[in-house]
Amino acid sequence: MKPRGYIFDLDGTVYLGEHPVPGADAAIRALRARGDRVLFLSNKPIARREDYVSKLRRMGIPAKLGEVINSSLVTARYFQRICRSGEKVLVVGEEPIQEELLKHGIWLTEEPVEARYVLLSWDRGFTYDKLDRVFQAWKRGAEIVASNPDRTCPVDGGELPDTAALIGAVEAVTGQRVDRVVGKPSPLMAQAALRQLGMKAAACWMVGDRLETDIRMARENGMGSALVLTGISTRREAERSPWQPDHILDSIAGVPDLKSR
Amino acid sequence: MKPRGYIFDLDGTVYLGEHPVPGADAAIRALRARGDRVLFLSNKPIARREDYVSKLRRMGIPAKLGEVINSSLVTARYFQRICRSGEKVLVVGEEPIQEELLKHGIWLTEEPVEARYVLLSWDRGFTYDKLDRVFQAWKRGAEIVASNPDRTCPVDGGELPDTAALIGAVEAVTGQRVDRVVGKPSPLMAQAALRQLGMKAAACWMVGDRLETDIRMARENGMGSALVLTGISTRREAERSPWQPDHILDSIAGVPDLKSR
Repeated sequence: MKPRGYIFDLDGTVYLGEHPVPGADAAIRALRARGDRVLFLSNKPIARREDYVSKLRRMGIPAKLGEVINSSLVTARYFQRICRSGEKVLVVGEEPIQEELLKHGIWLTEEPVEARYVLLSWDRGFTYDKLDRVFQAWKRGAEIVASNPDRTCPVDGGELPDTAALIGAVEAVTGQRVDRVVGKPSPLMAQAALRQLGMKAAACWMVGDRLETDIRMARENGMGSALVLTGISTRREAERSPWQPDHILDSIAGVPDLKSR
Repeated sequence: MKPRGYIFDLDGTVYLGEHPVPGADAAIRALRARGDRVLFLSNKPIARREDYVSKLRRMGIPAKLGEVINSSLVTARYFQRICRSGEKVLVVGEEPIQEELLKHGIWLTEEPVEARYVLLSWDRGFTYDKLDRVFQAWKRGAEIVASNPDRTCPVDGGELPDTAALIGAVEAVTGQRVDRVVGKPSPLMAQAALRQLGMKAAACWMVGDRLETDIRMARENGMGSALVLTGISTRREAERSPWQPDHILDSIAGVPDLKSR
């Protein structure tokens, strides 16, 4: 049997806040033991990839930095590709995504007049002043990129408003859609994952808890898909969704038993 | 000739920031001299009605408090009607609208768990924390009301993000439309203006610079309408708009010469 690739969402799939989903460690160990490849793919832009590696290890799931891709990394690579020399990005976002951009050689600015691009990302320090800077940059022609489209992020005891809040605010004020959203379900994320795994989409499963990001990305990019019911989307939502998963699992524990489509 | 009612928008129509539109004072004087009635109707929720009276007087336009209606006043009256005893409102908005609610006997709260309603309004002190409070109140069943739908507010040297930003952020996170938007083009504003004037809609002109608020309210509530080109909407936008004004004027100076439809 040829090895397959398993791409796992993190929050709501592998763990909930600080608590691993029961059986997550055993499932991932079983996949690795039989020669399959594992990758973790998160839209969450407020943590560092190194933090995810540590967190997974704390939960008994060995992981290397190269096995974790988040929207911050893919966003930084995207700007690396589109920014010409001297072009600057005005960022609304937290430290980790700003660091990732700097590591990739992207020039940042806080001045709307200097911004060729704006990056919108989840920012718990978001203020009206930041919104106004984005708007003034847009009026001067800046293109607007968002790190991820998530409405909310699950946390212990509930959920918090995510980057969608910022996208919604900006779109309402400009009267236009933002130019690009990088995170899942964007093909940029799918391509980054496949390149890292060194596999074709048809040989991969995407396992996640969100229909509109995880399952949609899988469907639109030729991967197999499994929805787990430990996070945001419910079985009932799956039944009515335009993005039908190939399988619905109670949790990640069932992943080693997935049968090819 | 029977007297007619003239309902004027303020920002972008009567003045721009601190500068009166040339001829505004003479036009309004001419209407009053011939026995017509005048009312000022603003969506802007970050100033007091008393401030508008002072500002108009500074510009040589006599006005009484009863001739100025803003979205804060109509919002406060709306809550007065819908709030049952003990029901509280969580407000995202500036001092003037909070004061107007308190003057009308509305109980306010900052605790999501106590909020039966949420009011979204233009707030230059808007933060992520406030957004999260709104979201947590909504999750507990609070209804969401917005003071006005404006995308931006014209100011000297440009425009600033208005209440639409907040509505957009909240709708993106909840995945639902807010329950009610009070300001123009809502019929609540039209009714408040007509009641104050003591006139029927057919006897009134609405004069404003925004197609989607001023002209739309006039069309949907049976008033005559004149778009002035001193503010946000352009002649080109008017040509493509679903809300066609009866007349397009270079400025408020032409209002005394409006001919009945």
